[in-house]
Amino acid sequence: MNQFGRLFQVHIFGESHGDIVGVLVDGMPCGIKVSSEDFQPDLLRRKSGGLGTTPRLEADEIHISSGVFNGYTTGRPILLTFQNQNTHSKDYSTFTTHPRPSHADFVAERKYRGFQDYRGGGAFSGRLTLGLVAAGVLAKKILPDVRFDTKITNLGGETRSEAFEEVLKKAVETKDSVGGIVSIRVSSVPIGLGEPYFDSLESTISHLLFSVGGVKGVEFGVGFSGVGMKGSEFNDRIVDSAGNTATNHNGGINGGISNGNPLELNVFVKPTASIGIPQETFDFQTNRIEPLTITGRHDAAIVLRAQVVLENCVAIALADAVLLNKVYRKDESK
Amino acid sequence: MNQFGRLFQVHIFGESHGDIVGVLVDGMPCGIKVSSEDFQPDLLRRKSGGLGTTPRLEADEIHISSGVFNGYTTGRPILLTFQNQNTHSKDYSTFTTHPRPSHADFVAERKYRGFQDYRGGGAFSGRLTLGLVAAGVLAKKILPDVRFDTKITNLGGETRSEAFEEVLKKAVETKDSVGGIVSIRVSSVPIGLGEPYFDSLESTISHLLFSVGGVKGVEFGVGFSGVGMKGSEFNDRIVDSAGNTATNHNGGINGGISNGNPLELNVFVKPTASIGIPQETFDFQTNRIEPLTITGRHDAAIVLRAQVVLENCVAIALADAVLLNKVYRKDESK
Amino acid sequence: MNQFGRLFQVHIFGESHGDIVGVLVDGMPCGIKVSSEDFQPDLLRRKSGGLGTTPRLEADEIHISSGVFNGYTTGRPILLTFQNQNTHSKDYSTFTTHPRPSHADFVAERKYRGFQDYRGGGAFSGRLTLGLVAAGVLAKKILPDVRFDTKITNLGGETRSEAFEEVLKKAVETKDSVGGIVSIRVSSVPIGLGEPYFDSLESTISHLLFSVGGVKGVEFGVGFSGVGMKGSEFNDRIVDSAGNTATNHNGGINGGISNGNPLELNVFVKPTASIGIPQETFDFQTNRIEPLTITGRHDAAIVLRAQVVLENCVAIALADAVLLNKVYRKDESK
Amino acid sequence: MNQFGRLFQVHIFGESHGDIVGVLVDGMPCGIKVSSEDFQPDLLRRKSGGLGTTPRLEADEIHISSGVFNGYTTGRPILLTFQNQNTHSKDYSTFTTHPRPSHADFVAERKYRGFQDYRGGGAFSGRLTLGLVAAGVLAKKILPDVRFDTKITNLGGETRSEAFEEVLKKAVETKDSVGGIVSIRVSSVPIGLGEPYFDSLESTISHLLFSVGGVKGVEFGVGFSGVGMKGSEFNDRIVDSAGNTATNHNGGINGGISNGNPLELNVFVKPTASIGIPQETFDFQTNRIEPLTITGRHDAAIVLRAQVVLENCVAIALADAVLLNKVYRKDESK
Repeated sequence: MNQFGRLFQVHIFGESHGDIVGVLVDGMPCGIKVSSEDFQPDLLRRKSGGLGTTPRLEADEIHISSGVFNGYTTGRPILLTFQNQNTHSKDYSTFTTHPRPSHADFVAERKYRGFQDYRGGGAFSGRLTLGLVAAGVLAKKILPDVRFDTKITNLGGETRSEAFEEVLKKAVETKDSVGGIVSIRVSSVPIGLGEPYFDSLESTISHLLFSVGGVKGVEFGVGFSGVGMKGSEFNDRIVDSAGNTATNHNGGINGGISNGNPLELNVFVKPTASIGIPQETFDFQTNRIEPLTITGRHDAAIVLRAQVVLENCVAIALADAVLLNKVYRKDESK
Repeated sequence: MNQFGRLFQVHIFGESHGDIVGVLVDGMPCGIKVSSEDFQPDLLRRKSGGLGTTPRLEADEIHISSGVFNGYTTGRPILLTFQNQNTHSKDYSTFTTHPRPSHADFVAERKYRGFQDYRGGGAFSGRLTLGLVAAGVLAKKILPDVRFDTKITNLGGETRSEAFEEVLKKAVETKDSVGGIVSIRVSSVPIGLGEPYFDSLESTISHLLFSVGGVKGVEFGVGFSGVGMKGSEFNDRIVDSAGNTATNHNGGINGGISNGNPLELNVFVKPTASIGIPQETFDFQTNRIEPLTITGRHDAAIVLRAQVVLENCVAIALADAVLLNKVYRKDESK
Repeated sequence: MNQFGRLFQVHIFGESHGDIVGVLVDGMPCGIKVSSEDFQPDLLRRKSGGLGTTPRLEADEIHISSGVFNGYTTGRPILLTFQNQNTHSKDYSTFTTHPRPSHADFVAERKYRGFQDYRGGGAFSGRLTLGLVAAGVLAKKILPDVRFDTKITNLGGETRSEAFEEVLKKAVETKDSVGGIVSIRVSSVPIGLGEPYFDSLESTISHLLFSVGGVKGVEFGVGFSGVGMKGSEFNDRIVDSAGNTATNHNGGINGGISNGNPLELNVFVKPTASIGIPQETFDFQTNRIEPLTITGRHDAAIVLRAQVVLENCVAIALADAVLLNKVYRKDESK
Repeated sequence: MNQFGRLFQVHIFGESHGDIVGVLVDGMPCGIKVSSEDFQPDLLRRKSGGLGTTPRLEADEIHISSGVFNGYTTGRPILLTFQNQNTHSKDYSTFTTHPRPSHADFVAERKYRGFQDYRGGGAFSGRLTLGLVAAGVLAKKILPDVRFDTKITNLGGETRSEAFEEVLKKAVETKDSVGGIVSIRVSSVPIGLGEPYFDSLESTISHLLFSVGGVKGVEFGVGFSGVGMKGSEFNDRIVDSAGNTATNHNGGINGGISNGNPLELNVFVKPTASIGIPQETFDFQTNRIEPLTITGRHDAAIVLRAQVVLENCVAIALADAVLLNKVYRKDESK
């Protein structure tokens, strides 16, 4: 059940240390210009290299294997793959019996009974988000006038962006990790996207966001912080014929449908589960709690590289809604 | 696109002031005992009557019209309907041109161009959640040993439950409204539910929750409040062979899959958009901002009645995951 | 799994002798005029009354319970139901253990283990086709310029229509039954409908047709009778810029996509399984072959009333393809 | 919309002269032994080489790129691809404006407006059936005790198999082509497969079969040839407690559900559209009918290589039904 979307359909596959990871995108209309270069900016945003990111460096060269002909989409499924090259599989062999805390090791073992590809987290690896980023690049081509503004607004409890480097430095030094909040703002979203019940815009966006490893919270508009507001304070007054509102506490969505104001949402990404500090966790071979040291290569703050992944999840949900809207939008000239 | 579920499929229909609202539930296995009485406890929890709830009182008598024979499910689609009786349709006629702030009036008008049933909020009405509650009752029959513990942990910014009545009283007196946070805890969830990408348990649960009007935030485990924790603090150590963890910051889910610890989540429900206090909003007939007074019957705190709705959304997602697991669970006796 | 359609979604429910049968249609665009009267012509075509049809007479009054407001579709799910009134349930009680030949009695008992509603064939009854007919009426509203020409071209082996009454008379007199071939021709189908793999027009049409009880063969164009033709004979030459072909051996479909020539197909409906002649079949109570006499009310030639059912199945498949085409049709003015 | 299956999901992609063709199979349970060798027998049956098959020879080496680890399925999506090597793309460039009769050239041009990959038939090429064959091999692993018996029972109007070679020889000599009927018999099918409405076994099987290019007819049991039978002749009497019937006119399916008798069906494959004989067809550049000579490499009787493709389509439908049945089969020991 690895597919999402009513019309713009995204299908993720691959394992961290297998041959490839990738995505099959179906439902992309024909006649849209696509080249490998189009993917580079977003793939670069996902890449490691900076402070707090994993030393596993991958070329992340994209292969477009079907659905594009003479530089344009054909209207057929588009297969996008990435080779896995820089893999250290020996790091992971013991985690099936001595599962890492807050990782999927334990549930994978119980669900797949030893048949899961456990190398590098297998199908649970953050490496699979490459497919989401790539699909999002295609999705954005269906959303021409929309503008994304994505940033970290909280890193490890710190909300002043000028102090983020300090937070990262400390996390790396202490071999620990930090989480954060990614805030996404999408402007110029057309009015009328979303199909409630059950495809409210919040539903489809959150569905995709929560499929990304480490995401533990999603809120729209003011979100949880609005709990102390009265209705008279929370309500967004419409101030003009375009539907602009004086405030945007609802985050650009009413009744599950975009209202033309900026779409605003926050996503909480938990601290990277892999840390260099020795931990204790149950060992299913010795049948008691044993010390565990994780020696692999990891991000001190996965939230840094998650930004573009989450942004592109939003793009995918919007692209699907835009295609659906082509069917169901009532022509204004009736 | 009013359906949700891979196997346990829920299809909502109806309008607030039409003949009926209801739900078609497909994918329910045969041979499960079902009677009208089974629905009463949860329907009662959704009912109005208490302080802060709407004076619109409906009998909410359920009609089981197909899929049940001699008191047991037949394995065929189950149609559950509720008559609408106590309707005051004249209250709503002007909102298509003078849309209520934070309601779906404006987006419905723009999306459906005057064809929407605007009476009582039409298909956007909270009355459609009757179908969710009813479907959830069936879902729970597939989850025999699971226990739900659902409560409001924050009402209008107040977290002490003994002060909730005071908050409500004040909201009613001032003709204003309040929001709140519903906390749901599900214990005895089997290990292994969830199918990532893209049907992580967080994905399917949030998809359903965000389809409920007024929901603006969903978080699992400690959620957003965990942003200041280091990985070494956040990680849940496994302490025994059953997979129990010392803490439950992940809310019972790792890698999108249930880990056997209690499923814990919080849902933010915004303050009821309808308030008795006069407001201002754009009037598309006069083409300027005009005062608006809402005279219909409404809940001062819709979050009160939303509790069972949200709980049953979780039940629906879990039921679907349980059925999928019947196919994909590897037999332990391999 | 009682739903069909990517966008125009049809969901059948009900049992022959339960309270109701009906259909939930989702994905119908808003703003389309609909009234109960619109359904009468097709419902009448399905009605019994003539020679060779069952004496079970039902009012077949349609109830539109949601999704239509002020005479127009709202863009929300449309619930259409029919009361069951003229039911003789005592006729059917023994068939779970002494199953009727060529009926679903045996498989239903084995699949649902006694929980199936066995009265009147339950969910396997031809009465459920009322929902298909009704959904087809809505589907046709999305296909404004298409013309259906549906007729029986073979009844009990007889291909001369003037001799059909004689065939029926003989079947009724002998308490036996006959099958037949329904030929459907749809003209003015737009070019470009169908989405291969896997939604070729032949695929979706046959999927729906084979869901109708008694259908055992579907062929397009010349079908099986073309097996003796050479490629040079079979190939349809295009003769003008509109894509018209000199012959139509392919039945208006190439590569799974409509080519603008009339859609032509034949459907074989087997002889009604219920006959008045005593038969023998295994009795699971006595554990031996026993004589069986079916005393209920039945059609000597169900193919007569099946015509409009099959035609409307085609309409449903076309409506879905038309909606999909709104998304994926490349604008000619590029 | 290139996917089929509720649980065993098959997703076809690729183009005839692109880099690859292949299939993404999702929903395969974990722990099933899979190696490249397993695919060879069925791939070999699809291969060209014999009389009446295309001289385009491809290695058809399968690449398993995800979802298999240490020789067993992981429960994750399985990506299977084949390189395209022996391609002569210049053969096809003029067919967009001078479309081949009975091919998809005309509809592809009208649907995709020049953006389709027209080389070698692009996505309409029979080469895409490699993915179906490969997916069918996986499907068969879920159907351990089932036996397929697939053969051509009619070639170009000839029903005596000993005369088939003569038919082929003549077709090749005259540069013409022939069609045929493939008869598939599946024995030891479990009772209870199929989920009507709308997933009757006939529906899902025909859906897949009609997605294969050239298929123009599907019939179950005696099919169309049973039109002259009376109900008293057609009905299959159950003769023992296992549900065996004296005859099998229904082809092993009643009410859309397998009844334990052999599944029997016939599939009509039209004569190969590509023939060496000069033809006439409309030229959209000169705007008149012009002679057309097809010089590419083709099968004189595509039905020969279609056998295993059609068989594996049936396997895919059965595998999906078997997985669904795991959820919905009522335990006999109730």
